[in-house]
Amino acid sequence: MQQIYYLDNSSTTKPCEEAVNAVVDAMTERFGNPSSLHALGFEAERALTNAREQIAAELSAKPEEITFTSGGTESNNLAVFGAAHARHKRGHRIVTTAIEHPSVLLPMRQLENEGFEVIYLQPDKTGHITPEQLFEAVNSDTILVSLMAVNNEVGSILPIDDARAAIDSAKAPALLHVDAVQAFGKLNLRPGRRGIDLMTVSSHKIHGPKGVGALFMRKGVHILPRTFGGGQEKDIRPGTEGMPAICGFGAACAALPDADKERKKIAELNTYLRTELAKMPEVAINSAEDALPYVLNISAGQVKAQTMLNFLSEHHVYVSSGSACAKGAKSYVLTSLGLSPMRINSALRISFSRYNTKEDCDAFLSVLKEGLATLQKA
Amino acid sequence: MQQIYYLDNSSTTKPCEEAVNAVVDAMTERFGNPSSLHALGFEAERALTNAREQIAAELSAKPEEITFTSGGTESNNLAVFGAAHARHKRGHRIVTTAIEHPSVLLPMRQLENEGFEVIYLQPDKTGHITPEQLFEAVNSDTILVSLMAVNNEVGSILPIDDARAAIDSAKAPALLHVDAVQAFGKLNLRPGRRGIDLMTVSSHKIHGPKGVGALFMRKGVHILPRTFGGGQEKDIRPGTEGMPAICGFGAACAALPDADKERKKIAELNTYLRTELAKMPEVAINSAEDALPYVLNISAGQVKAQTMLNFLSEHHVYVSSGSACAKGAKSYVLTSLGLSPMRINSALRISFSRYNTKEDCDAFLSVLKEGLATLQKA
Repeated sequence: MQQIYYLDNSSTTKPCEEAVNAVVDAMTERFGNPSSLHALGFEAERALTNAREQIAAELSAKPEEITFTSGGTESNNLAVFGAAHARHKRGHRIVTTAIEHPSVLLPMRQLENEGFEVIYLQPDKTGHITPEQLFEAVNSDTILVSLMAVNNEVGSILPIDDARAAIDSAKAPALLHVDAVQAFGKLNLRPGRRGIDLMTVSSHKIHGPKGVGALFMRKGVHILPRTFGGGQEKDIRPGTEGMPAICGFGAACAALPDADKERKKIAELNTYLRTELAKMPEVAINSAEDALPYVLNISAGQVKAQTMLNFLSEHHVYVSSGSACAKGAKSYVLTSLGLSPMRINSALRISFSRYNTKEDCDAFLSVLKEGLATLQKA
Repeated sequence: MQQIYYLDNSSTTKPCEEAVNAVVDAMTERFGNPSSLHALGFEAERALTNAREQIAAELSAKPEEITFTSGGTESNNLAVFGAAHARHKRGHRIVTTAIEHPSVLLPMRQLENEGFEVIYLQPDKTGHITPEQLFEAVNSDTILVSLMAVNNEVGSILPIDDARAAIDSAKAPALLHVDAVQAFGKLNLRPGRRGIDLMTVSSHKIHGPKGVGALFMRKGVHILPRTFGGGQEKDIRPGTEGMPAICGFGAACAALPDADKERKKIAELNTYLRTELAKMPEVAINSAEDALPYVLNISAGQVKAQTMLNFLSEHHVYVSSGSACAKGAKSYVLTSLGLSPMRINSALRISFSRYNTKEDCDAFLSVLKEGLATLQKA
């Protein structure tokens, strides 16, 4: 089999063996409907409870604070619309950032159409949002603050604790939503202890299957549902539970290594790559030094990202240009960082997982060098 | 291993081997993100296209008419809200039935709160809606007609073609939505040829995995999305595609036997069961003679359904009381049929799939008889 060098883990990860086994088990041994009132249904319900406990454990949360959804996009939509619509009588300001994922930004545009005032905080050129920006933006009319824990394109870490402090300081009737899709499993999040009301997590970024995510809702927090049906997930998100993916998600959570220890290992790979890239004059680093080490965004010479992506792909090295969702469109995140058009157009995102090794870095470096030599000449 | 007699296939089905294999393949061999612009992404995108084609083929539809969702509930919500909101300037009447699934009925209640007028057609005592009811209810102010192809609790077949005719006759600006969750794979639906604009199908009722469904949208039909994000599914339903379940759904479609031939086999099981049950004076049949043979609703003596369900379950015979979603709540479908409280409280739904045999029927009959003898005495 062809050896591949997969460095696109912020787009998606390879499901771990534990997740695959749990998915198969849910389809073959425990295929009942958790709502069915017979032995097969009860067995499925126990599997559902088990998965919910596995996800809750990773978040130091209570199982009843976990609502399953179809993924990060649905969790973000549910949190943003659900919070805004539940609190629309208590204020009309929403604070977010210009570098959120489209599944937060586009619901925000809808809410603007509905009459909400949405403040989009602009990052500095390393992708940081400052505490001061949050304290300035959050006022007593603010009903929702939504910011990502880690930016998906450059890896910058956003000041969640300051968002909480800003809400408290302004005595705002605001819920705090955190899109933790890129942070989950990589930082110790513990949303309940940090005053996070709503938090989005996704399975397929942590070696679980695609098609499932969850929304953490702190006990006592009330939001409005977006979907109506047969009462599952306490009516917050009804529909027969997607058991195979849910069980795979649970297993992937249980298989996660200690986040702090693992992050140190990834930081070594990141540092190695940065050190080697620093020797290449045509490469510029776009990720801040203090970014989450799982993400490294660079600009490589005068070569359009898609051209370099193709070249790398032909050599079985897989990275991305910006986010996978953008499908090659110009990155609004890098644009908001104020980078030059050439740096934006040549930007590559390398993203790690626990399966990566120095060998992957070396393969990337070697093919990148070859690519720059070959493609810039052409 | 313990032999089980699974006759609760309208609640959920056991994934077929083809589906399980496709799910595993999507997690191990083709785990890329379909939006990623490298070889692994392209491979995933091909798998997505393949699954879309497999589902389209079963519906005699075009692949681009298929939008993947997380299941029947989301498809129904998307169709009902999406159609009503897209057409709210053209009229304000919606016509549906009183025996739809909660994932249609509850969105309808929301739309009533928004100012739409919703007409709920009442079934006769065998669960039929008549063409006359539709022609009377659909007027030139009607923007949506939503009815299920087959009722989930009693199996009655609803007059879809008459719904289309009523819309045309009234020159109504209405879209026709059909919840085909219970009919898909069991009747030859061909929505495009029958003037159906939107049709809901679900994977886990046809031996595919739970957590995925689709919405057929006839070419040219426009509805508003409910979810906003990264542009997947042509912006109608964004979010990283739930590839494992999607591929399993496709494989389950491809593995479906000819619907007409298979229905005849199931009709034989149904007839056998009806004949044997007719010999039991304490059993009454609630499903109409012309109901889809996959569903047989009966009332059994003076025994509460849950008590009988437990007894059957202890003997490894699995059926349901009403729908799985209702989780034991009193059936509004049977109530709307005008059945007596005792018949409603003792109602059992037997539902078949292609994996059932006469042996399952015999096991059910034998344990039911024992149950009636034991439990009525108690």
